[in-house]
Amino acid sequence: PRSYRITLLPGDGIGREVVSVAKDVLSLAGSFEGVKSNEKIHSIEFRFREVPIGGSALDSVGVPLPEETLTAAKESDAVLLGAIGGYKWDANEKHLKPETGLLQLRAGLGVFANLRPATVLSQLVDSSTLKKEVAEGVDIMVVRELTGGIYFGNPRGFGYNERGEDIGFNTEIYSVPEIDRIARVAFEVARKRRGKLCSVDKANVLEASMLWRKRVTALASEFPDIEISHMYVDNAAMQLIRNPKQFDTIVTNNIFGDILSDEASMLTGSIGMLPSASIAESGPGLFEPIHGSAPDIAGQDKANPLATVLSAAMLLRYGLGEEQAAKRIEAAVANTLNKGFRTGDIFSDGTTLVGCKRMGEEVLKSV
Amino acid sequence: PRSYRITLLPGDGIGREVVSVAKDVLSLAGSFEGVKSNEKIHSIEFRFREVPIGGSALDSVGVPLPEETLTAAKESDAVLLGAIGGYKWDANEKHLKPETGLLQLRAGLGVFANLRPATVLSQLVDSSTLKKEVAEGVDIMVVRELTGGIYFGNPRGFGYNERGEDIGFNTEIYSVPEIDRIARVAFEVARKRRGKLCSVDKANVLEASMLWRKRVTALASEFPDIEISHMYVDNAAMQLIRNPKQFDTIVTNNIFGDILSDEASMLTGSIGMLPSASIAESGPGLFEPIHGSAPDIAGQDKANPLATVLSAAMLLRYGLGEEQAAKRIEAAVANTLNKGFRTGDIFSDGTTLVGCKRMGEEVLKSV
Ligand SMILES: CC(C)[C@H](C(=O)O)[C@@H](O)C(=O)O
Ligand SMILES: CC(C)[C@H](C(=O)O)[C@@H](O)C(=O)O
Repeated sequence: PRSYRITLLPGDGIGREVVSVAKDVLSLAGSFEGVKSNEKIHSIEFRFREVPIGGSALDSVGVPLPEETLTAAKESDAVLLGAIGGYKWDANEKHLKPETGLLQLRAGLGVFANLRPATVLSQLVDSSTLKKEVAEGVDIMVVRELTGGIYFGNPRGFGYNERGEDIGFNTEIYSVPEIDRIARVAFEVARKRRGKLCSVDKANVLEASMLWRKRVTALASEFPDIEISHMYVDNAAMQLIRNPKQFDTIVTNNIFGDILSDEASMLTGSIGMLPSASIAESGPGLFEPIHGSAPDIAGQDKANPLATVLSAAMLLRYGLGEEQAAKRIEAAVANTLNKGFRTGDIFSDGTTLVGCKRMGEEVLKSV
Repeated sequence: PRSYRITLLPGDGIGREVVSVAKDVLSLAGSFEGVKSNEKIHSIEFRFREVPIGGSALDSVGVPLPEETLTAAKESDAVLLGAIGGYKWDANEKHLKPETGLLQLRAGLGVFANLRPATVLSQLVDSSTLKKEVAEGVDIMVVRELTGGIYFGNPRGFGYNERGEDIGFNTEIYSVPEIDRIARVAFEVARKRRGKLCSVDKANVLEASMLWRKRVTALASEFPDIEISHMYVDNAAMQLIRNPKQFDTIVTNNIFGDILSDEASMLTGSIGMLPSASIAESGPGLFEPIHGSAPDIAGQDKANPLATVLSAAMLLRYGLGEEQAAKRIEAAVANTLNKGFRTGDIFSDGTTLVGCKRMGEEVLKSV
C-alpha cells in the first residue's frame, strides 16, 4: 500500500474532538479499495503522529510551537491541524500567544498559498443570512498569500516617533517573486475551476499593492485562457455581499485574504463546514478548518467536525494527490447531510441534531 | 442671519450632478425659518465657492489637489465633496491619481475622524441582499481613523531587498495621541447613540494593533457608561454578515475602516443613500457620499443624489452645529422616499422611478 506520514495537531478548544473524527474518516477513506477473503485491501496507509501546538503547547512545553512539533511536521507528508487559541492565553505577550505558534508553523513549512473555498451547499442554503437567490450556488475560492506581507514584514515593533510619542508599527512588503508564485498558483486554481480570477488590492493607495497589480497583470499573458480582473479591497468587501456569484477565484495578500476569506465564508452561513489548504513550493502542506477553537463549547461533544473532515479531503487532494480518496470523503459528507444529520451550528427544523462524535460515526458509515 | 462659507468640490463622474442637488437642498434647508410679509427669513446664509479636485483638477490644472483648492477648503466653514476618480486616470502614476488629491485634502484639513453610518431605512429594507429579519433595524456607525496608519505611514515606496528582488512596501504606524483622539471621538459618538463601542483590530498579529487595543482599553475607564468590546478584523468581517444588529458604534484604523465601512454599507443594499462626515480637531470638516464617481452613468441624470443630500445634513450637524436644519433635510429625504420616489439603484416594483434632478426637486418640495 502507499504509505504516508500525517502529523496531527489537535491544538486547543474543540480542536481535539474534530481532529479525532477527521483522523478516523481519513483512515477509512484510505483503507477501502475492495475486499479480499474478508480482509480489507489497504490502498493507502497512514502513520499518524500527534504533537502539541498553540495553547496546549504553551501549557505543556512553554512555547506555542515546540521544536519537536515543527520537526515532526516537516518530516511528514502532510499536516492536519484542529484549531488554536482561547481566552486563557489572550493576554499573553506576542511570543507567547497561541497564534504566534501557528504563524511560526506556516513560516517554518513555507506554506505560502492558502486555499479557502466558500461554497454554499444546497442542503445548507437556509443557514446563510443572505437571501436564498443571492446565496444559492455561491462557489468561491480565495487564494490568500500566507507567508508574507504585513504578517511577517520587518521592521515591526514598538518605539517612539520624532515627537517622543509611543508608537506601534508594522511593514506591509511584497517582493516580485513572492507575488509571482502566489499569482501562478491562483491562475492554476482558476484554470481548474471556472476560469475567472479576480485579484484584490489597494493599488490606488499602497505601493505594495501597485507592485502586486503590476505583476499579476504581467503574468496574465501567460494564462490567456483565464479571465483576469482587478478590484480594490473595499469594493471587494461590498461586492461579496451585493453579488457573490460574480466571483470564481480570488487572489489577494495575507491581510486582505484574512479579512475577505472570512467574509466570504460567512456568506455560506456555515463556517463549521469550511476547510482550508496551505501549500508550500515543496514539502508538506497544512490543512485546517477555517473555524476557531470555540472554547465555549470545547469538550461538550457539540462541535461540527465536518470542516476538519473536509480539510482531510483537501489533504488527500492537494497534499497527497489522492483524488479518489478525497472524493470519497466529500461524497460521504454530502450523503450524511442528505440523510438530515446536523450539528447545532447548522441545525434547522426537520433535521436530526447530533453531536460531534455521532456526526463522525455517520460520516464513517457513508465512506 | 448666521452665515457660512461652504467649499463645493463636485469632483468627477456623477459628482457634479449630486453636488448640484445637495447645494440647492442645503440652501433651502437653511433659508426657511418662517415667513414675514411674504419674505422668507434667512436663518442661515451660505456662501458657496466651487473649486476643482481629482480627475477634473488633473485635466484643468495638472494636479489632483490644486493649492487654490486646499486654501479655499481651509478658509471655509465646511467642505462638501461629490466623488473623485474614473477609468481615464486609473493608470496614472501615484502622484497624478485622483485618489491622491483626496488623500492630500484629508491630510491638509487634518480630518482624522471619519464617521460612516450604515443604516437600513425601513422603506428600503428590500434592497438589502440580506434576509429581511437580518437587515431590518441595522443601524451602525463606523468611526474610521482617516489621516494615519498605512495610508500615510513612512517609509513607503519601491526598492530592492537583500536578495536584489524588486519590492513594494508601506508602513502601518500609529502613535498613542493618534489612537487616543480617534478613540475619544468614538466613545463620544457611542454615547450619543446606544452606548456600545466595538474596537476592531488585529492585535493577535500586528504590533500597531496591540498598541491600539492597549490605548482603547485604557481610555475605556474614562467612559464607564460605554460598553466596550474588542474584535479581530477577520471576525468583524464575519459578524457584520452573521448578525449586524449586534453592532452599534465601531472604531477602527484607516485601512480596516476602509474595508469594514464599505462592507457595512453594502448590508443596507443602498449605498446610493449613505453619507459620511470627516472631522478635524479644529477647522472645517469634509462631507461626502460614500459612493464613488460611477463614470458609467455620469451625465445621464441617473445618479442617486440622496447620499450627498444626507452628507449636507451631516455637514449641518457635525460641521456647523445646525441640528435643526440637518433634521429638516433628513425628514425631507424620508418624506420623499415615503412618497415612493426612487432612483434606479433603489427602484423596486410599485415605486416611482425618477432621475437625479427630479429626485432633487422632490426633496426640495419636502424641505
Ligand atoms: C489566528 C490568526 C493568526 C490567523 C490569521 O490571521 O492568519 C487566523 O485568523 C486565520 O485566518 O487563519
Ligand atoms: C478613493 C480612496 C482613496 C478612498 C480610501 O481608500 O480612503 C475611498 O475608498 C474611501 O473610502 O473614501
